[in-house]
Amino acid sequence: MKKYVYSFGSQSTEGSADMKYILGGKGANLAEMSKIGIPVPPGFTISTEVCKDFSNNGNKYPSGLETEVEDYLVKLEIVTGKKFGDVKNPLLVSVRSGAASSMPGMMDTILNLGLNEEVASSIANSTDNPRFAWDSYRRFVQMYGNVVEGIEHEKFETVIDEIKSGKGIKGDTDMTADDWQAVVKGYKKLFKIEKGRDFPDDAKEQLWGAIKAVIGSWNNQRAITYRRLNHIDENKVFGTAVNIQSMVFGNLGSDSGTGVAFTRNPATGENVPYGEYLMNAQGEDVVAGIRTPKHLDSLKEDNEVVYKQLIDIFSTLEKHYKDMQDVEFTIENGKLFILQTRNGKRTAPASVKIAVDLVKEKRITEKEAILRVEPEKLEQLLHPTLDPKSKSKFKMIAKGLPASPGAGVGQAVFNAQTAVDWKENGKKVILVRAETSPEDISGMDAAEGILTARGGMTSHAAVVARGMGKCCVAGCEVLTVSEIEKKFRVGEIIVNEGDVITLDGSTGEVFLGQVPTIDPELSGYFGTIMEWSDKYKKLGVRTNADTPRDAKVARDFGAAGIGLCRTEHMFFQADRIFAVRQMIVSETLDQRKAALSKIFPMQKNDFIELFRIMKGFPVKIRLLDPPLHEFLPKTKEEIEDIAKEMGISAEKLTEKVEYLHEFNPMMGHRGCRLGVTFPEIFEMQVEAIAQAACELIKKGESIVPEIMIPLVGEFNELKWLKDRLVPVIESTIKKYGVKMVYEIGTMIEIPRAALTADTIATEADFFSFGTNDLTQMTYGFSRDDAGKFLKDYLEKKILPEDPFKSLDTVGVGKLMKMAVDLGRSTKKNLHIGICGEQGGDPATIKFCHQIGLNYVSCSPYRVPIARLAAAQAAIESEK
Amino acid sequence: MKKYVYSFGSQSTEGSADMKYILGGKGANLAEMSKIGIPVPPGFTISTEVCKDFSNNGNKYPSGLETEVEDYLVKLEIVTGKKFGDVKNPLLVSVRSGAASSMPGMMDTILNLGLNEEVASSIANSTDNPRFAWDSYRRFVQMYGNVVEGIEHEKFETVIDEIKSGKGIKGDTDMTADDWQAVVKGYKKLFKIEKGRDFPDDAKEQLWGAIKAVIGSWNNQRAITYRRLNHIDENKVFGTAVNIQSMVFGNLGSDSGTGVAFTRNPATGENVPYGEYLMNAQGEDVVAGIRTPKHLDSLKEDNEVVYKQLIDIFSTLEKHYKDMQDVEFTIENGKLFILQTRNGKRTAPASVKIAVDLVKEKRITEKEAILRVEPEKLEQLLHPTLDPKSKSKFKMIAKGLPASPGAGVGQAVFNAQTAVDWKENGKKVILVRAETSPEDISGMDAAEGILTARGGMTSHAAVVARGMGKCCVAGCEVLTVSEIEKKFRVGEIIVNEGDVITLDGSTGEVFLGQVPTIDPELSGYFGTIMEWSDKYKKLGVRTNADTPRDAKVARDFGAAGIGLCRTEHMFFQADRIFAVRQMIVSETLDQRKAALSKIFPMQKNDFIELFRIMKGFPVKIRLLDPPLHEFLPKTKEEIEDIAKEMGISAEKLTEKVEYLHEFNPMMGHRGCRLGVTFPEIFEMQVEAIAQAACELIKKGESIVPEIMIPLVGEFNELKWLKDRLVPVIESTIKKYGVKMVYEIGTMIEIPRAALTADTIATEADFFSFGTNDLTQMTYGFSRDDAGKFLKDYLEKKILPEDPFKSLDTVGVGKLMKMAVDLGRSTKKNLHIGICGEQGGDPATIKFCHQIGLNYVSCSPYRVPIARLAAAQAAIESEK
Repeated sequence: MKKYVYSFGSQSTEGSADMKYILGGKGANLAEMSKIGIPVPPGFTISTEVCKDFSNNGNKYPSGLETEVEDYLVKLEIVTGKKFGDVKNPLLVSVRSGAASSMPGMMDTILNLGLNEEVASSIANSTDNPRFAWDSYRRFVQMYGNVVEGIEHEKFETVIDEIKSGKGIKGDTDMTADDWQAVVKGYKKLFKIEKGRDFPDDAKEQLWGAIKAVIGSWNNQRAITYRRLNHIDENKVFGTAVNIQSMVFGNLGSDSGTGVAFTRNPATGENVPYGEYLMNAQGEDVVAGIRTPKHLDSLKEDNEVVYKQLIDIFSTLEKHYKDMQDVEFTIENGKLFILQTRNGKRTAPASVKIAVDLVKEKRITEKEAILRVEPEKLEQLLHPTLDPKSKSKFKMIAKGLPASPGAGVGQAVFNAQTAVDWKENGKKVILVRAETSPEDISGMDAAEGILTARGGMTSHAAVVARGMGKCCVAGCEVLTVSEIEKKFRVGEIIVNEGDVITLDGSTGEVFLGQVPTIDPELSGYFGTIMEWSDKYKKLGVRTNADTPRDAKVARDFGAAGIGLCRTEHMFFQADRIFAVRQMIVSETLDQRKAALSKIFPMQKNDFIELFRIMKGFPVKIRLLDPPLHEFLPKTKEEIEDIAKEMGISAEKLTEKVEYLHEFNPMMGHRGCRLGVTFPEIFEMQVEAIAQAACELIKKGESIVPEIMIPLVGEFNELKWLKDRLVPVIESTIKKYGVKMVYEIGTMIEIPRAALTADTIATEADFFSFGTNDLTQMTYGFSRDDAGKFLKDYLEKKILPEDPFKSLDTVGVGKLMKMAVDLGRSTKKNLHIGICGEQGGDPATIKFCHQIGLNYVSCSPYRVPIARLAAAQAAIESEK
Repeated sequence: MKKYVYSFGSQSTEGSADMKYILGGKGANLAEMSKIGIPVPPGFTISTEVCKDFSNNGNKYPSGLETEVEDYLVKLEIVTGKKFGDVKNPLLVSVRSGAASSMPGMMDTILNLGLNEEVASSIANSTDNPRFAWDSYRRFVQMYGNVVEGIEHEKFETVIDEIKSGKGIKGDTDMTADDWQAVVKGYKKLFKIEKGRDFPDDAKEQLWGAIKAVIGSWNNQRAITYRRLNHIDENKVFGTAVNIQSMVFGNLGSDSGTGVAFTRNPATGENVPYGEYLMNAQGEDVVAGIRTPKHLDSLKEDNEVVYKQLIDIFSTLEKHYKDMQDVEFTIENGKLFILQTRNGKRTAPASVKIAVDLVKEKRITEKEAILRVEPEKLEQLLHPTLDPKSKSKFKMIAKGLPASPGAGVGQAVFNAQTAVDWKENGKKVILVRAETSPEDISGMDAAEGILTARGGMTSHAAVVARGMGKCCVAGCEVLTVSEIEKKFRVGEIIVNEGDVITLDGSTGEVFLGQVPTIDPELSGYFGTIMEWSDKYKKLGVRTNADTPRDAKVARDFGAAGIGLCRTEHMFFQADRIFAVRQMIVSETLDQRKAALSKIFPMQKNDFIELFRIMKGFPVKIRLLDPPLHEFLPKTKEEIEDIAKEMGISAEKLTEKVEYLHEFNPMMGHRGCRLGVTFPEIFEMQVEAIAQAACELIKKGESIVPEIMIPLVGEFNELKWLKDRLVPVIESTIKKYGVKMVYEIGTMIEIPRAALTADTIATEADFFSFGTNDLTQMTYGFSRDDAGKFLKDYLEKKILPEDPFKSLDTVGVGKLMKMAVDLGRSTKKNLHIGICGEQGGDPATIKFCHQIGLNYVSCSPYRVPIARLAAAQAAIESEK
């Protein structure tokens, strides 16, 4: 016959931690603790198989279950020396759910089961604590009535309220034993009215009612929703176990008590137990905050024996679970019981310190330590953050997308120029825009943070802000921004230019006023974790950096090269945009070349600076990518101003702007398509790169420039351009008389490039996945517009995740895998990386490791995260 | 030893037609004709292998070649009874190139080789025709000097001009024998000056010089360019053969002559030989038009024997080649020689008639007949066309893209309303726009043709025009259209409203004035070819039709159902656009539902009409696809007008328009994404479809509606929508109490849909490839913007073809193949079609057949083309 029930807490514990899928997390853990000698109140677990059978067979228990439960109940009576349903020596139990995946608070629990009038009276006598007895009983009736019989919670509360108000009592603590007994009476009357029958007094009846309710709670709406929201796969994890455990009480008098503790400090990671307890209290009293709990240290005075025992248990638990534990305990008449232990939640700094300490203590290996730190959480260590204690004192007026983490405090300004001007006057500003465009870059650079009403996690504002390591709240749709009137509105609230606001880029919150911030501490522990990560990771980690400043930050964070330098950002700088515009309005090749020759020396200096900062690390430079109209003015006023400045008529400039207008610029005349139409632009850029590199090589530095052609979808594009660019480089090398190794490769960001990667690889020295564009094209989602429906898609669970944030491994990933395989079928050792936004996302990094990329490239502030995630990917794939 | 030389024209002809790759097309054909007893001037062919060896081995002939050529020369002397280089009885030869792929005029030819002073004098005597002799000699010197020695043509002309002007002669016909002799002298002097040596008199030296020149001509720039332009694959076809053939002369006197003839009439296909000839003339005289050639019939009188012989040869050739032949012949002293035969070029009507006649004559099978008609040419049969004779009399002012074939004549108008108004007043108009938008539909419908300055072959104007079978010239970039001033400008020319212009949609030409047109004749032959096509094709052919009118045309052309009905075009009609706009500006679900309920009855009636016209053929209806902003006004004036009409403030409407604005609408909030956000829109449409079908079913008709969800990229989108739409259909069926089979399937137009087609197939009853969008996304080309660089790409040979016109089988096709295979791995018999613009392109249809699609769907006017192409694909794949 199949076994459905497993005991724990006694010498004959039948389960263990690895039986999670059968016993649920709680059941397996209770069994595990029992096995290593932790004093757990004994009990038994009905396996998840029963829940599955029950669901599948029209709510019928598998045959033999009743007998088996009865048998284990008898065993439990023997172990505890008590008797279920007995008046003199009653065995009280809790009945709790517990699935393989933790679903906190989502399913049901019944405590104090086994009580009735007689038993309660008997306990009142035997404990000499009638208040405890009747309070316990009323709690049971309330839970049972609610969970098993479905009577609304509020109705029970009404009964208590009536009695309280009849006697002028305010808090529960003022209720006497008699009062609670009266409540029980009221409850039972309520039960009779609601259900048309008496509240069950028979312990076994109570038990089976509770078992059924717990099993049924697997399919309650709350649980179903929770599983959906948390992507719990029912094919893998199905059903809840039912844990029946003997009750222990911390409220039996002054030698009883209850508490919760962490085996180390969860905020700092310090190796000192940290906890709170209350004597003569129940678990919920500690949490509820009615009485102020005492610090764990005081337990030494209250009961030194128990304290020592507890500290010993902490040590045993840590040794066993090899991690900091979050422990619930109860002292019943001087006897210590552990009710639960689990890996404790901790802050990012604590998680780093604990992981490193555990290695020093030889509890875990370096690899295990690396797996203990959540990469995403490292972000907390890298940016100043809002002081959580102060946040609640300020008015939160809106919530947008947490586009770039960190805190930003400053005066609201509504255009880039004002941001620059005010910053120069020593002010701190927040740049608020409906959305940002490349022309806002100087203003974004000057601002403490950026707030936009439109655009998603990968909108211009978000991408650039992350690149700058600057706080940004994007797509804050409730904002109505008037850039002309220099104000924004949220409902009734109007924020004018100069008003101080605070952004929390990690949550998307926007506050009125100046919320205090706290600075990050990059402690030595962090350095150690990074060092270990580099030891085990297989993927290289590079950075996306367009400016010397970005490159510097990234180097400090350990980036081993630049994976993407977007040259167009250089074009927007005030000292060259004029020449760029001249180049664009040129009518002839000669005019265009003349304009390009003005940009040339500036580009060359940019590259010299970048090469110097990256000191011999590889620097991958992408040639001009955006459509030309991005560099031209948009409004009539701007056009008039700029036309005057350029010495051409406004009509002519308008004509050019109109000619360059595109319906879908993302799929328009950009990238290598520009290079094919105007090869002289790419030639100028390549010459600037080659000269910069050659000059430094001549000075003895070692430079390997990597030139990246954007938006290639067809082999011939790359071939045609290479045929024009290679001679430029070769003649530069000749001119300088140096030896220079260089590479010309391509972005893989157009689906067709991935599909034809075998052919493209014949001309490409490397591939770099541009997963922003690749995601756009593969999904047909414009990232600038997707905000409107992506929110809906995530809410309606049509997509599990924003694919611009974390790579869609199913679709986009399939194309990437294909490109890697096809590319390497042509060139076995083809060097392949990723430089899309997702390159800094841990799940994406894991996927990149799996499909065999050589490196990931991400924004400077995500470099440490990527290093850690890359190490985790390597370690996990060893398993 | 390897054989390099092959004889023809004698009893010992060594080659045949199937040796094309060795002998070149011309050589193989000369051999073939010889074999079937056609009187061909004898000669021999040096194989293409020699050219290949010569190229690969540093311009050296393979060993043994010289001896072999000498041997064949001796054999040729024996056959002709003449002697090479002999003065008395000279053998003159031509030396011509001839590759396996025809490259007309691209490589070199030398005639009359073997002549020198002595030989010419001797011929002058023996033929009693000194003018012929010296003219022939001077021609040889000129050709040899130019082709073999590289002396510019103009220099030779200067020599002639000097002699002519010295003697006051105007035309070549006035030149006497002495004059030509003087020319020869002049030529030889020129040669000496240019080359520093005498012109070669030795026949063998001449021969080897010519052979070398012909072989070398394979790699001249002209030939290389030609091969590149015509996609001739040098790996398959390499090198030219050299044909050395004894000369025959049509200009030896009145019993000599020369001519060209078609074995049937190439214009009409009538089975009557059609040709022209001149007695006492050379081939080039017939072509040059100096003397008016005589009609073939006159030959009966000039030389009945030769005429009969020629007609017999025509018959032999047709029997042998099983097709109408284009024949070149020469009569030398009363003896007929055939110099060349090839399948004759013909008009579309002729190609259809000839193919059908040849089957009736039992020369070819039905399948062969089908392969004889070029599908693309059928278009000529379907639209009225400009009278080619009249075209040249009118001023061509511009040339755009031939977006939709046919002729359009009318008065230029610059907005849709004027087009409608003028048409109502009985005028014929051409709608001229910078570009068209869906709001122009009524105007396009009213116009005879559409002319746009922007947009490509698949721009809105082009697609809609083709759908309407209406002539359209798109992307005519030289036009500056001012819609406000109601005129357009091309250079100096201004065309005002009301000026008559003519469009040739088959060439993209735009003319000033009214060019006469000729009407199409859909003769019975056409019907026969279509009937046979349907017999052999495996692919179904459906049509893309949005209106009853389209559906009717398509049915008449043999469409077996609708593959794509775009419901949005119905939304634009004047009587419903108001309700559509109300729906869009709705703030609440109730408002939106109220507006939808106004559209509902109209949609329902549309579907009833469509179902009725398609009489039981399947009708595939695509739910709303375009972004909502397409339905809203754009200019300030329009917004104000419409706001007033709708009873809302202009500010509110402006706000809505701005809210809906998208940066890249093609990848924005459209298709199923709209359905997810506003399921009530799709629900209304589905209910209208279901009610329409149910009503007709109730009346005894057999209707299977196929509902198509656009823009699906993820299984969950389809699932989520089906969960909402199926209940609507089911309850409608229930309400009507009928039995109805229906299908819900999806477009595959997003790369991710193709990549995840196995999963999507679990919910889809069918797939339909939307290759317009699929091409856009796979290439990252916005079809509205690609015009700017696609032209460049085609010119620079980066792409072989506009991928929006003919499917890119390499990239987009790979995705399609993947989707077919993945989809059918889930559902073995999944029904799959294509409904993109390329569905009417023969090459695409062939590919669709190969990857196993069930049907193609194209615009009504392309249905016959598709039927033929589908049959050809099936027949070709049998091989």
